[in-house]
Amino acid sequence: MSQQLFVIKIGGNVIDDEASLHRFLQDFSKINAPKILVHGGGKIATRIGEKLGIVSQYVDGRRITDDATLDLVTMVYGGLVNKKIVAQLQHFGCNAIGLTGADGNIVPAHKRPVKEVDFGWVGDVESEKINTTLLESLIKSNISPICAPLTHDQEGHILNTNADTIASSLAVALSNIFSVRLIYCFEKKGILENIEDEESVITTINKTSYAELKAANKLFAGILPKLDNAFVAIDRGVKQVLIGHADDLLANTTDTTTGTLIQ
Amino acid sequence: MSQQLFVIKIGGNVIDDEASLHRFLQDFSKINAPKILVHGGGKIATRIGEKLGIVSQYVDGRRITDDATLDLVTMVYGGLVNKKIVAQLQHFGCNAIGLTGADGNIVPAHKRPVKEVDFGWVGDVESEKINTTLLESLIKSNISPICAPLTHDQEGHILNTNADTIASSLAVALSNIFSVRLIYCFEKKGILENIEDEESVITTINKTSYAELKAANKLFAGILPKLDNAFVAIDRGVKQVLIGHADDLLANTTDTTTGTLIQ
Repeated sequence: MSQQLFVIKIGGNVIDDEASLHRFLQDFSKINAPKILVHGGGKIATRIGEKLGIVSQYVDGRRITDDATLDLVTMVYGGLVNKKIVAQLQHFGCNAIGLTGADGNIVPAHKRPVKEVDFGWVGDVESEKINTTLLESLIKSNISPICAPLTHDQEGHILNTNADTIASSLAVALSNIFSVRLIYCFEKKGILENIEDEESVITTINKTSYAELKAANKLFAGILPKLDNAFVAIDRGVKQVLIGHADDLLANTTDTTTGTLIQ
Repeated sequence: MSQQLFVIKIGGNVIDDEASLHRFLQDFSKINAPKILVHGGGKIATRIGEKLGIVSQYVDGRRITDDATLDLVTMVYGGLVNKKIVAQLQHFGCNAIGLTGADGNIVPAHKRPVKEVDFGWVGDVESEKINTTLLESLIKSNISPICAPLTHDQEGHILNTNADTIASSLAVALSNIFSVRLIYCFEKKGILENIEDEESVITTINKTSYAELKAANKLFAGILPKLDNAFVAIDRGVKQVLIGHADDLLANTTDTTTGTLIQ
């Protein structure tokens, strides 16, 4: 059986809260197995952007990455957020290495083609080109890659890229080598049967139960894309996808998970 | 004989000029041997700092790294400058990986002790702790480390650190494994015998000729610390130190150097 690897994604809600982040990183450093962290951006880019006078344009609620915004996210995600996480993990005894997709060419991408909307410097990952050799070598040297939500176009440009997509692309690519559990940390304990009841976590979902839950209209619409993406990852080789709270990270790396385990 | 390694340092004068940087990186990518780049900061941190309302304090011409300045240099040096260099090198076919000293714990340091002046979050490198294992592994995988002028205190903080010092510390540490030529790129072709004459480069200096040049007052005072540091590096195992112009990089990686070769 291949070695277990955890690919863990945290979003802005953890990054924006110093105490949450500190707690999360302490837990991350305690995972006694190969692990990769993919982090989102958080609100700090918006705050710094406002001070710099960078006014982001939005289309249908999605930010357009123009030249100034690209510089901003390269600085904040690739520099400030990423390096603070790395320095803290080093302090907790976890040998972390901060990477964008350009570093070691780990996540090649291309600029999203312009259709109705020009999203600007936004990257679509070229999954088949992910540098698993370097990632495997780092992981086997007991070094944990910490990935910023940035890729590159192989033509000299950094690209702003969705952290969920980077996490699932890395998880899929590394499934050839490791037995991968992909963990999405979000603000709930898991997928809830009753959105009003935090304790009504659906502990496991497989394809059959997913079809039943959908047919019975038991899932709120917002969670469906996350679940669809989870099953795509599983179809492509990821062993399990776990959706849970950042505070429950350690439990969710064991056999007795508290979040929603999709397999 | 051990394999040759080039440790190359560029400063702000190259980073601040887009055309110079482009040319330099193209040349760097053409060096057909193991290579590490250490870059300084450039004026862009000051420009962005002004926009963010960060007013740097100076003591005797040296900037104090307070909390806000540390965030600024972490963003700009570790994010914007470093990742732009990495993305461009990838485009030129050089597999670059951008690192601060915190990444992979490659350059541990400690906060400079407060004596007359508190320089703030400034790091003094702990040379003996440099992670040569990771650097060697990257280099032998044909990956070029691109080092930002940042280290960490192993207690969770990034530290602002002089790029010249990082370059010489890396060169010394890697001399156990490689035959290292440490190349400092600056704005002159080399050390000049006549400061008014750009062509009067002193092509080689050794300890004997250095003593003679000093005794004859043939060197201007500003260059003496650079030369003293070069001889310290050589005493600690670096094979050669080369001081030359960024535009002459390729020549200065051959046997027919155009800058000042110190050995």
